[in-house]
Amino acid sequence: MEQEFRSSLLESAVNELSRLPGVGRKTALRLALYLLRRDVAESDALGNAIINMRHGIRYCSVCHNISETEVCDICANTSRDRRLICVVENVKDVVCIEHTASYSGLYHVLGGLISPIDGIGPGDIEIDSLINRVAAGGISEVILALSPTMDGDTTAFYINRRLRSAVADCPTISRLARGVAVGNELEYTDELTLGRSIVDRRPFE
Amino acid sequence: MEQEFRSSLLESAVNELSRLPGVGRKTALRLALYLLRRDVAESDALGNAIINMRHGIRYCSVCHNISETEVCDICANTSRDRRLICVVENVKDVVCIEHTASYSGLYHVLGGLISPIDGIGPGDIEIDSLINRVAAGGISEVILALSPTMDGDTTAFYINRRLRSAVADCPTISRLARGVAVGNELEYTDELTLGRSIVDRRPFE
Repeated sequence: MEQEFRSSLLESAVNELSRLPGVGRKTALRLALYLLRRDVAESDALGNAIINMRHGIRYCSVCHNISETEVCDICANTSRDRRLICVVENVKDVVCIEHTASYSGLYHVLGGLISPIDGIGPGDIEIDSLINRVAAGGISEVILALSPTMDGDTTAFYINRRLRSAVADCPTISRLARGVAVGNELEYTDELTLGRSIVDRRPFE
Repeated sequence: MEQEFRSSLLESAVNELSRLPGVGRKTALRLALYLLRRDVAESDALGNAIINMRHGIRYCSVCHNISETEVCDICANTSRDRRLICVVENVKDVVCIEHTASYSGLYHVLGGLISPIDGIGPGDIEIDSLINRVAAGGISEVILALSPTMDGDTTAFYINRRLRSAVADCPTISRLARGVAVGNELEYTDELTLGRSIVDRRPFE
């Protein structure tokens, strides 16, 4: 490739930055020139943080959440409710649910959703390890906290069927409540959600 | 600050990434999780490219373009037309003009534009060094290749006045042609540009 910027150092920084998702060559150049204008310490910190993160972080052998140790600190935390497993698509969802402070059980990170269109089958995500965890016993409820999308519903359906057939004395399997979002105006809620929220109406307490 | 991600390594990568312009914490987390899914070699390459770039690149002492040496290779190139100086706002503009392959003179990178609103005065950008370069002689033309914006016009106006008053036997001072963009439909060209292109019309050749 022709050298675009007359500096192989800038060239390689732009090349590497533009590999990031959503970062094109124009944005990469803008980021690189930004870093060039800033303190040396700032780009050292960024570069080292990226390198150290990738070397230091691995995945929990139990729940597949990111961890700096063999077993993540959620799985290792004995004060959490160890009879609950919340099944999520990815690490970001764990962060989101932890932020709500509404859940104190364990997690199971699938690392994706079943998606026939993208060629992702049940064997490509952490479903077998979930079945084994539940089959090992001691679980009272599995919460399927997957996105209410086609892929999320497919995955939830598949996991539900696998659990019920593979695990004798299967624990409760639940899913997230669906309905109007808190704080949203009814008139801007889509029809499907609104219809669902009427069908799933709850006693006023 | 509370530790958001249960991993100080991820935390610090997200913190550093979110310092970049246009990158918020959500995007930073997305980028970090992307890197975690990729090969170790990829984040090593990115981290090192950032660190090496910032340590290795400095600014040309003549034209203030980025350079890996005291004098950049455009300024050092004896086959370029050394009587022409093209004055640009920043390093990106040098890349853009070099891409056109329409210019073979030297550059002068101001490092910004005069902008009273942002508190950037003539002393904050490389105007004095431009005056000195031109005053040293041997220059036949100074091309003011600044954006046709308020700040660009202000800066061009100021440089023009300074050059004419400070440099005896001042070289030609020119600016970029303004008019309809090549390939654009006339009906979508803004009125100001279209009006200007009629006033500045050129003989048909």
